[in-house]
Amino acid sequence: MLRVTASENRELREQGAVFMPKFDSAGLLSAVVQHAETGAILMVAFMDAEAIAATRETGFAHFHSRSRGKLWKKGETSGDVLQVVEILVDCDQDALLVRALPAGPTCHTGAASCFYRVLEGDALAPVKT
Amino acid sequence: MLRVTASENRELREQGAVFMPKFDSAGLLSAVVQHAETGAILMVAFMDAEAIAATRETGFAHFHSRSRGKLWKKGETSGDVLQVVEILVDCDQDALLVRALPAGPTCHTGAASCFYRVLEGDALAPVKT
Repeated sequence: MLRVTASENRELREQGAVFMPKFDSAGLLSAVVQHAETGAILMVAFMDAEAIAATRETGFAHFHSRSRGKLWKKGETSGDVLQVVEILVDCDQDALLVRALPAGPTCHTGAASCFYRVLEGDALAPVKT
Repeated sequence: MLRVTASENRELREQGAVFMPKFDSAGLLSAVVQHAETGAILMVAFMDAEAIAATRETGFAHFHSRSRGKLWKKGETSGDVLQVVEILVDCDQDALLVRALPAGPTCHTGAASCFYRVLEGDALAPVKT
């Protein structure tokens, strides 16, 4: 059996070529979706191992719904799926950056991005586009 | 006392002009940092109410370290601070997009962004820049 120290494990995770996602105590990691062409941030959600596997197998973004406690294919109902172009991994492998092409508006409100408001003082204002 | 139903509360949160951040059971929400000029995603972390307040008061990004259980000013030791340009809020107000200008490399590894590797098959490869 291969034994590694915590320091070696950190080194492997940060510098290695092996995908070893680091899930939190709820089995989740953060997933940010960025438009592969415009660079706009479309949404932020969570993935568990099942959602990562489904995303990689199908090429469409899947997440884990914390409120419903289950796998969720983005656009399953609306048709507004996210076609994955590439997946980037951060230093400690507890966050993924999913670069994707959206089939329609990403936000359930109909907005292109979930980030349609900006903080101005204590209020929220529409993002200028 | 103003009473609102869950549905009205959701409507307020999604369509309203009031900043009402939605924290998870650990008191946290996701915070994504994007380079305000290039659009590159620099890092993903968590903020609690204290980190949001410190960020807004100082103009420099602060986070909540889950491993150390405390407030963390990005760049406090390294000097590689993140000067906040604007903060966007997502539909259900459980994620923030911090658009910032970095004083240096954002990643503690020395990389400009924490997302320096891309998933290729089952392996990680350096991101082509």
